[in-house]
Amino acid sequence: MKRLVIKFGGTSVGNIEKIKKVANIVKKRFEEGNEIIVVVSAMSGETNKLNTKAQSIAQNFDDKELDVLLSSGEQVSSSLLSGALIDLGIKARSWLGWQIPIITDDNYTFSKIIKIRTDEILNFISHKGVAVIAGFQGISKENRITTLGRGGSDLSAVAIAKFFQTDSCEIYTDVDGVFTTDPSISHQAKKIDKISYEEMLEMSSLGAKVMQPSAVQTSMIDNIPIHVRSTFSEKSGTKIISESEIDYKKVVTGIAYSKNNAKISIIGVVDKPGVAADVFEPIGKNNINIDMVIQNTSLDGKNANITFTIKQGDLKKTLNTIEKNKKTINYNKISHDDKLAKISIVGAGMVSSPGVTYKMFRALADEKINILAISTSEIKISVLIREDLTQKAVKKLHSEFGLN
Amino acid sequence: MKRLVIKFGGTSVGNIEKIKKVANIVKKRFEEGNEIIVVVSAMSGETNKLNTKAQSIAQNFDDKELDVLLSSGEQVSSSLLSGALIDLGIKARSWLGWQIPIITDDNYTFSKIIKIRTDEILNFISHKGVAVIAGFQGISKENRITTLGRGGSDLSAVAIAKFFQTDSCEIYTDVDGVFTTDPSISHQAKKIDKISYEEMLEMSSLGAKVMQPSAVQTSMIDNIPIHVRSTFSEKSGTKIISESEIDYKKVVTGIAYSKNNAKISIIGVVDKPGVAADVFEPIGKNNINIDMVIQNTSLDGKNANITFTIKQGDLKKTLNTIEKNKKTINYNKISHDDKLAKISIVGAGMVSSPGVTYKMFRALADEKINILAISTSEIKISVLIREDLTQKAVKKLHSEFGLN
Repeated sequence: MKRLVIKFGGTSVGNIEKIKKVANIVKKRFEEGNEIIVVVSAMSGETNKLNTKAQSIAQNFDDKELDVLLSSGEQVSSSLLSGALIDLGIKARSWLGWQIPIITDDNYTFSKIIKIRTDEILNFISHKGVAVIAGFQGISKENRITTLGRGGSDLSAVAIAKFFQTDSCEIYTDVDGVFTTDPSISHQAKKIDKISYEEMLEMSSLGAKVMQPSAVQTSMIDNIPIHVRSTFSEKSGTKIISESEIDYKKVVTGIAYSKNNAKISIIGVVDKPGVAADVFEPIGKNNINIDMVIQNTSLDGKNANITFTIKQGDLKKTLNTIEKNKKTINYNKISHDDKLAKISIVGAGMVSSPGVTYKMFRALADEKINILAISTSEIKISVLIREDLTQKAVKKLHSEFGLN
Repeated sequence: MKRLVIKFGGTSVGNIEKIKKVANIVKKRFEEGNEIIVVVSAMSGETNKLNTKAQSIAQNFDDKELDVLLSSGEQVSSSLLSGALIDLGIKARSWLGWQIPIITDDNYTFSKIIKIRTDEILNFISHKGVAVIAGFQGISKENRITTLGRGGSDLSAVAIAKFFQTDSCEIYTDVDGVFTTDPSISHQAKKIDKISYEEMLEMSSLGAKVMQPSAVQTSMIDNIPIHVRSTFSEKSGTKIISESEIDYKKVVTGIAYSKNNAKISIIGVVDKPGVAADVFEPIGKNNINIDMVIQNTSLDGKNANITFTIKQGDLKKTLNTIEKNKKTINYNKISHDDKLAKISIVGAGMVSSPGVTYKMFRALADEKINILAISTSEIKISVLIREDLTQKAVKKLHSEFGLN
């Protein structure tokens, strides 16, 4: 007998028929003799609808009340799924965050799970019950509802897998698994059977929407194997596991991309220790996420240029922040560029394969795609290009690295 | 400084604009210097939508899961209203049933409130905070969500008024108050300024949809004055108070009606002690509500006829139940009649006014309306008539008893 966490995303429970389908999947897994804990997202579109309601009440809708509001979505789907299971003759019960309880910190709207009580649910599932847990939600120490941020049900699933020491954590979604690139950009995209946490992290934060990055990170830290698979097909899905368990035949595992990037260059800052901190401290304090960073020293060694990328939506706010701090930063001028895309090749096999960088740049040059910035890590190389060239670049690299 | 419970029904919080309007009403009442506890229903239509979802999952959707599902409606409206108040610069906070907690019995879907903890909310409102409580919900001793039945937010409001010892309980709704009869049936209907609990109870259970009957009953038992008023006008509304505080100038306070009644006559039962119990025990066990009951003894004193009324929707089930118990009941034959209406004149002043009964029957006879059954109490007289004559009867009686 295995103990499983199986998580269903919003599109998997998007309407009544789909909820019934999910109930049948759960029933099948239960009748195979497993102990089952189900984690469920809100029905697709519901969280957006609730958010829109809050936004039309107030531009800065109170965080704590927003969490009360948003958590109702998973309350609806978890009770509907429990009801569907009971109707199939299964002993089932829904648990909301406060009933378990799932204790989080008090960062409302983006809380982290601290602790999950297990005794009641363990008792229930060991007596032939299927527990259905509302994802995305917990409670703070002051007994108020918290939520884990967008896509937080993945985080719930991974944390539950950890605290309940389950044998595996399955993420059911609306696609067959993780692909070598976005199938809507290249129909040559192939499903990946096994991927490491690190690769998946690069893939997911760069645009593959299968699983929430921080959930992948958590599963990596606690070494929880994840199995991504489809609610709507019987295909084998993608296993996210430790790098050491994968036999790498290909250097590059997948091509990821993200659109809506903007680039800012601060030209002519004094090249002295602490200058980067002077630039990024006020930006960080304004909750703006910095992605790529490049620092060039000028020829005379006195001045430097700092270039970095951010999300397009943060451009105005970032420019304002820099201008406000002009005195501290002490720069010559600023230039910026929006409508940029970041294209990345990801692969744990890259570490031991020299020449990947050169091959990537040559391939893009062959397509006359200009590279505006580069950043690398052990398992990926990212380049910044014009957004309208995204598809061209992805297709070229997908073919270049033998993924077609 | 007064402590008030103010309750807003579903139509009062039916959309974002209305919620903002309600927030402004609450703000005004708060700035008058009152301690405020708001109780709020689900946005109109939401509970029905959720019920429909449950019904399309399973005909007999599990009661406990249904309560988890339905209670999400008030979770949404209470958080939206709290957010709207905070946006107006008011310190406000939502409380769900489990957070207070509101302890109920474990009759899921129709629970009764046993106890409400008050310390946290009292502390909050005594420090210039407005508490917004989700109506309709509580928790059972086993820590699961319960609901109080349809219109249960009225019950929440009255129970909160009791446990928090508030100075008054105001029910904001979409009409100006309680009327002498249904304004859609007679545009001669007038708003009643003061009505006794007993009269209101007769009015509400007989069809005036302003307030839930069991909430009126609870307020009567604990002598909690209720003030019914409109969210959308400044009119003075209707006060529901103890009979002794009302100076009755009119014998009849209002004309109520209910449609969709059916009548069953069991003819030729043996007239002996216990026969009525033999008839009504199996019906009661099938959760069918009996309304009027008339028993006639036959001329020979050996046999009797029992006639009673039920809701039209229960007719088939009731007939089946009686036929199944034919041996025990031992009757000659059954007849039945559906599409009947019950018309009632209600008034605490009737007790001391002989001749009301005669006047009512004469008025109906003048309109050639045949009376099929009669039942009376100290403060009302009800007659059963053909459903299609409802309007005619109500208008005639409304004029006859000087309510025009």
